[in-house]
Amino acid sequence: MRDIRPLVAPRSIAVIGASTNAQKSGGVLFHNLVRGGFSGPLYPINPNAPEVMGRKAYPRLADVPETVDLVYIVLPRDHVETAVKQCIAAGARAASIITAGFAEASEAGRADQERIRAMAREAGLLLGGPNTIGMVNAECGMMGSFVNFPRWESGGVSLFTQTGIFTGALMLGVMSAETQRLPVGKSIDVGNKIDVDELDFLDFVADDPGTTVIGFYIETILRPAEFLARAREVRKSKPIVMLKPGRTADGARASLAHTGSRETDGAALDAAIAEAGIIRVADETEFVDALRTLAFLPRPKGRRVGIATTSGALGVMATDLVVEAGLTLSSFAPETVARMRGILPDWLPPENPFDFWIGIDVKGPREAHEVGLGAMLADPATDMLLCTLLAPGNADFPEFGDLMKRLRREHDKPVVLVIYGGAARERWVRDIEGAGIPVLRTTRDGARALALLAQAAA
Amino acid sequence: MRDIRPLVAPRSIAVIGASTNAQKSGGVLFHNLVRGGFSGPLYPINPNAPEVMGRKAYPRLADVPETVDLVYIVLPRDHVETAVKQCIAAGARAASIITAGFAEASEAGRADQERIRAMAREAGLLLGGPNTIGMVNAECGMMGSFVNFPRWESGGVSLFTQTGIFTGALMLGVMSAETQRLPVGKSIDVGNKIDVDELDFLDFVADDPGTTVIGFYIETILRPAEFLARAREVRKSKPIVMLKPGRTADGARASLAHTGSRETDGAALDAAIAEAGIIRVADETEFVDALRTLAFLPRPKGRRVGIATTSGALGVMATDLVVEAGLTLSSFAPETVARMRGILPDWLPPENPFDFWIGIDVKGPREAHEVGLGAMLADPATDMLLCTLLAPGNADFPEFGDLMKRLRREHDKPVVLVIYGGAARERWVRDIEGAGIPVLRTTRDGARALALLAQAAA
Repeated sequence: MRDIRPLVAPRSIAVIGASTNAQKSGGVLFHNLVRGGFSGPLYPINPNAPEVMGRKAYPRLADVPETVDLVYIVLPRDHVETAVKQCIAAGARAASIITAGFAEASEAGRADQERIRAMAREAGLLLGGPNTIGMVNAECGMMGSFVNFPRWESGGVSLFTQTGIFTGALMLGVMSAETQRLPVGKSIDVGNKIDVDELDFLDFVADDPGTTVIGFYIETILRPAEFLARAREVRKSKPIVMLKPGRTADGARASLAHTGSRETDGAALDAAIAEAGIIRVADETEFVDALRTLAFLPRPKGRRVGIATTSGALGVMATDLVVEAGLTLSSFAPETVARMRGILPDWLPPENPFDFWIGIDVKGPREAHEVGLGAMLADPATDMLLCTLLAPGNADFPEFGDLMKRLRREHDKPVVLVIYGGAARERWVRDIEGAGIPVLRTTRDGARALALLAQAAA
Repeated sequence: MRDIRPLVAPRSIAVIGASTNAQKSGGVLFHNLVRGGFSGPLYPINPNAPEVMGRKAYPRLADVPETVDLVYIVLPRDHVETAVKQCIAAGARAASIITAGFAEASEAGRADQERIRAMAREAGLLLGGPNTIGMVNAECGMMGSFVNFPRWESGGVSLFTQTGIFTGALMLGVMSAETQRLPVGKSIDVGNKIDVDELDFLDFVADDPGTTVIGFYIETILRPAEFLARAREVRKSKPIVMLKPGRTADGARASLAHTGSRETDGAALDAAIAEAGIIRVADETEFVDALRTLAFLPRPKGRRVGIATTSGALGVMATDLVVEAGLTLSSFAPETVARMRGILPDWLPPENPFDFWIGIDVKGPREAHEVGLGAMLADPATDMLLCTLLAPGNADFPEFGDLMKRLRREHDKPVVLVIYGGAARERWVRDIEGAGIPVLRTTRDGARALALLAQAAA
């Protein structure tokens, strides 16, 4: 087991190619490190400038007065190998090669990458990249990327990604979210994954108190047996979500072109990933939805779902999707049914799914929602709650957010919310901000979210 | 084959329960009929008012000077049966019972509903409802619903729904959409489906020149053999999308509670629906996405997909999802590859998926997107295009909308767009408005959309 903290949680950073031009990648990356308030010393390496953004610049890495943990290399591809040699000579512990144009680009690039890998391995230099947007670790204020993130807040989700631009887009989306924000604290993009791999990262986050949920975007698993054995243990306390394309032959070919990955994937590996209890997703939206659901909600005690809805049709759809997701519908306790009857006309018996739309006419929207959602959360036979609500004007009430927050606080059960049609939707989403209730876009997404919570609890 | 035009496309309408109180259902529904500009005469039936919203009111249906096509019944449930008798006595051709509390509510309600059905059938009175939000037909300006739709534009999509509130929410969502609006011209909600059923509606839309795409939300198929035989023919010229929950035993039970449906569903019917070439969806979002895709795009000549992306990772994901959706990746013609090379550095060979992110650096965003998307649309071996684009500032350019509109116009091939991460996303969606390019939320949704186009073309 290698200690990769010098790469992902460094105490000091140097940037070879730190430009005074804030338009260039090297300039943007260094500026982000300064702006992010990195906790340790920052050394711009630049032979043509006395300082970069107020920090004293050094002509060569060898001139830096200390042995640094991490060196970012932001240079044209033909200068990268020399820079790696300088890192080794200076005794640096880790380097992140931002530059692209290696194994993902050509056979020549692959050969260069292999040579650099061998060199670093022999010297014990940890490597990330090439072909990466860099790394972010909010705990030590490292915003080591050339992507301009509007803001960065910490959080329990830790990501390891084997891709460049996609990670940037993913993180831009996460960072600019005003509501339902995914709490990502660490995002480690290793691009072509020249050296440090998913197993190294898994070992790191397993012992990292700041990590509660683990996300992987990878196109290969370099040491499958060891990785899956470790994952089987780690996921018991920290759920693991994996977005790993290349399931099909064409996908594998595309992956080779993308990151130079040569995967020996196939059904066996797919089965082993599932058997290890890893939550597999197929696209970026499923990835973020799964991570958010696991970060926001506790694990359920069982697989019994209550469906609360203000549309009978949505209730029927939800029932199919919940059952097809491998969950069961809960049978309410008598006291639950009695409480539900309080908001329904006599001729309408409460059922699961519980459609309480008519309760809005009978008792008004506030009481209808309080009973409609509260009775089920209090029900001893209900482990999880799927709410598919309509938000037209006549279903709206000012205390919606307060009610949801209180119910979520009082009952520590998973609650997922799907909101359809209506003027109040956006305000409802804003008003529950901070409650730890994921809002999914569709009934299928909602059923899927509950299923993966049950999977994570198993 | 019954002529249901008196119900769905009436020449004259009376409303029993047309209230002068615009808060009551009967008042709202009549007001909507007036506001919608119904093309024929409108008769409010109200014993306590000389006129309703400027229209002369009549104490009883029998007092109306003509025999009306359609009567809306908006009364407390215990007065409904009498009203139906009045419709029969007055020789009305059709009635829509808005009131709820029948087969969906109780055994007594079911018995009442059966009695009303028998009475109407004997007299040849077409019935819709009970338990419905009503019917909209933009062609004749019939906004016959108690739901307050902000606006109504016509369009080729015709819907038949067996549910109340859900249809209202669905239509509210459709009607309030500022972009990517589903072009629904007719929305016929029959609630508990007491009489007029999906086969009657299918016969109507099959001969309706205003209908190009057909959507069903139904919980039962009353005459499966005849319906499916007819559907097999109609879908060749007008694709049919079906949202029919109740696939699981629990779902069927929930359906019984919702609309009093007693379905004898099961695997056999599911298989027959698929075999008839009907596009089956599982939730409301899939329903709207499928209808929009079919309404916006032509049918493809084959199943060969080109994937254009500005993220290698999204390209790999898209490849898996396209292949898993039963489609194939196209092999580009030499002239296509030659054109693609023009925006890439020499070391990067064009592939399918075509990741042209680097072309943005090489040639700028406008030319990169023009070639990235245009070359594939012009490629003779590519039947459909899946674009998964990133929209950060450096990928943006003012002519995005014009470019997409021109490409869509010049090449009559299906194009679906998925846009991730970035400031430009909303403007891009606004700027392509009217181009007939569906914007899907996820890569999976995009692959799914192309698959159903291929299915509709088969």
